[in-house]
Amino acid sequence: MATATSIQAHLDGLTKPPGSLGRLEDLASHLCRIQNSLHPITRPRGLVVFAGDHGVVADGVSAWPSEVTTQMIDNIVSGGAASSVLAKRFDTALRLVDVGSQGPRRADRDSADGHSDIGFRDARVGRGTASLAHGPAMTVTQFDAAWSVGISEARRALECGMRVVAAGEMGIGNSTAAACLVALLADVVPSAAAGPGAGADDETLRRKRTIVARAVDRARQLQARAEPETKTKTKTETKTETKTETKTETKTDTGVMASVCGFEIAAMAGFFAQAAQDGLTLILDGFIATAAALVAERLAPGTAEHMIAAHASAEPGHRAALTQLGLMPFLDWGLRLGEGTGALLLMPMLDAAAAIVSEMATFASAGIESSP
Amino acid sequence: MATATSIQAHLDGLTKPPGSLGRLEDLASHLCRIQNSLHPITRPRGLVVFAGDHGVVADGVSAWPSEVTTQMIDNIVSGGAASSVLAKRFDTALRLVDVGSQGPRRADRDSADGHSDIGFRDARVGRGTASLAHGPAMTVTQFDAAWSVGISEARRALECGMRVVAAGEMGIGNSTAAACLVALLADVVPSAAAGPGAGADDETLRRKRTIVARAVDRARQLQARAEPETKTKTKTETKTETKTETKTETKTDTGVMASVCGFEIAAMAGFFAQAAQDGLTLILDGFIATAAALVAERLAPGTAEHMIAAHASAEPGHRAALTQLGLMPFLDWGLRLGEGTGALLLMPMLDAAAAIVSEMATFASAGIESSP
Repeated sequence: MATATSIQAHLDGLTKPPGSLGRLEDLASHLCRIQNSLHPITRPRGLVVFAGDHGVVADGVSAWPSEVTTQMIDNIVSGGAASSVLAKRFDTALRLVDVGSQGPRRADRDSADGHSDIGFRDARVGRGTASLAHGPAMTVTQFDAAWSVGISEARRALECGMRVVAAGEMGIGNSTAAACLVALLADVVPSAAAGPGAGADDETLRRKRTIVARAVDRARQLQARAEPETKTKTKTETKTETKTETKTETKTDTGVMASVCGFEIAAMAGFFAQAAQDGLTLILDGFIATAAALVAERLAPGTAEHMIAAHASAEPGHRAALTQLGLMPFLDWGLRLGEGTGALLLMPMLDAAAAIVSEMATFASAGIESSP
Repeated sequence: MATATSIQAHLDGLTKPPGSLGRLEDLASHLCRIQNSLHPITRPRGLVVFAGDHGVVADGVSAWPSEVTTQMIDNIVSGGAASSVLAKRFDTALRLVDVGSQGPRRADRDSADGHSDIGFRDARVGRGTASLAHGPAMTVTQFDAAWSVGISEARRALECGMRVVAAGEMGIGNSTAAACLVALLADVVPSAAAGPGAGADDETLRRKRTIVARAVDRARQLQARAEPETKTKTKTETKTETKTETKTETKTDTGVMASVCGFEIAAMAGFFAQAAQDGLTLILDGFIATAAALVAERLAPGTAEHMIAAHASAEPGHRAALTQLGLMPFLDWGLRLGEGTGALLLMPMLDAAAAIVSEMATFASAGIESSP
C-alpha cells in the first residue's frame, strides 16, 4: 500500500533537499497515489483522439469551417499533425476514432503493435451534431452511443496493456460545446467559459458567447423542468423505486448534458469513466478534454481521482473547470490546439517523475546525512 | 538563413492554428534562431556539473555542511542523484568536474562513448573558497583558473560533437555566492537576491542576508575604488592605450566578481562563454547557473543570446536575473535542487519543439485551408 504518508516519506528520503524538485515531486506523488505504488509505471501508454463535427459551426462560432475536421483527421492519421509528431516522439501509441465527423467513410485500420503506426476507427454515431444554437445537439440515445464508443476504446487500451492513457479531440466548433458544459458543470459564467478557441476573432467570439449563454439557459430550463418531478417521486415511492428514480435523475442529467455536447466529447467522457474504473492512469489534456472529464465525473463520480491535469490551456474557463475536478495543472504554456497535445507534452515529465521515485539513491543507501 | 520572419512564417504554415502551441512555439522559434536553422538539432547533448566548496558555509549560511558537497559528488558520479537519473532518462551525457571541493582526490574517469556512463574530472583550483563573509572569496588568478576549466569543458563538448549543452552545479553554500553576484550584476537588492536555497531556516536565512549585503557592499567599494582611476586614464591616454585600459577595467570587474564567486560558478561562466562562442545551444538551469550566466555575459557579451532559460526557480532573485539576460523561463515548477536538473527537464521539450518544426505537415502539403 502506498499511502500519502509513505509516498512522502519515500520522496523525502531521496538524496535531495526535501521538496527541492518542486512540482516534479507533486507529479511523482500524484502518480504513486493513482497507481498505489512506489514503482509507478508510465508505459505502454496511449492517446486516443476522438473526432466529431458540430452543427453549431453553421451559426458562425468558429474561425474554421467543419471541413477542416475531416482534413485534420487525415492529417493526424497520416502522421503530419502536432499530435502525430509528439506521440511518436514520446513513445505514445496514437489512435484516431471518428465518433461523428461529416466526412466520407474511410476504412478502419489498426497498427500491428500499437506503437509503430497510427490506428483509425470509424465509429460514427452521426454526421455531426445538430446545432446547439437552435435545440439539443443530440439525443440521449446518441449520447449513450458515443459514450459507449469511449468505453470500448478504454477496454481496448486495457487489453493492449496500456498503463497510462489520454484522450484528445479534433472537432471544429467543439470549444463552443465545451464552454456550455463547463458553464453547466463547473458553475462558470457562460461568457467567461467561452474563449477564442482555435482563434475566433472578436465578432465570432461575441456570437459564440451569445450562443453559449442561450444554450446554457435552455439546458438549465430542461434541468429545472425535470427536477420538481424527481422530488415528488422521492417522497412517494419505496426504496427500490428510489434506486430506479436515481437512474431517472441520471437520465435527466444526461439529457441536459447531451443537449450541449459533442459526439467526441461524450466518447471522451465514456473513455475516462471506463479507464478510471479499470485502474488506468489518465492524463488530462486541455479545455475540451476537461469538459469531458466534468461529464465523466458527473456520471461516474471518482473518475477524476485517476487523473493528472497536464496543463492550463489558454481558454479562460479552463482553470475553474480543473479546480472543480480538484486538479492542479502542471504546464502553463498557453496551449490551445487540442488533439491531446498538452497531455503528450506531459508524458516525458511522467517518465521523469517515475524515474526519480524508482531510481534515485536514498540518504541511507548513499551514506549521506539525511537532514541538516 | 533562418531569420525571425522566416521562422515565424514556417511555424505559421504548420497544420495548427497559428500560435496554438503557445510556449512550445516560442521554444521552437528560440531554438531555430540560436541554431540559425529550420531543422534544429537537439542531440548529442551533454550536461557538465561543476562542483566546489564555499568558505562562507562556516559562517552559517546553509542548511547543510560542506561535507555534503563531496558526498553528493560521489552520488552523482555513481548514478544515484536526481541529475544522474534525469540525464540518463533524457539521453544527456553527464560529466562531473570538481573545480574546488574540500574532499579527497579521486581518479579521473571518462566514459567511453560519453553516453553510457558518468565522467569525472578532478580539476580543482583550490579546496573551497575563502569565506566571502570576511574578505574576497578568491583571487583573480583563481577565478581565471576556474574560468579556464570551464573553457576546456566547453571545448571538450564541441570535440565530442555535442550540439546542446547545459551546466549544473553542486556546492553547499553556493546560493550565497550566487545571491551576491545577482545583486551586483542584475541590480537586485541583496536581501531580495538571497533566498532559502536548498532549505535554510529563518535564522539561517537572516544570517545569509546580512552576509550577502555586507559582501556586496565590500564588492561595490572595490569597484568604486577602481573606477575613478579608470576614468582618469581614459581622459589622458591614446586610443591604443584605451584598449589596454578596457582590459584593466575587465580585470577590475573580474576582481569584483571573484570576491564573491565560487570556483564552480566561475567555471560555469567560462563554460558558457566558450560554448556560446563555439555556436552551441545552451540550456540555462536555475539560480546558480544564472548567476554564472551574468558573469559570462559581463566578461563575454553576447553569451546569453545562445541561451534558453529552462525554468524559474524558487529563489526570489531568479526572475530578475533572467530578465537582465533577456530570457523568459519555460517551466515554473518551483525547483531549487540545482545539479542542472531544471535544464534536464527541458531536454524532452526541446526534442518536442524540434520535432514540431521538422516533422509536421504544412497546410500546403496536407491540402488544408491555411487560414480561416
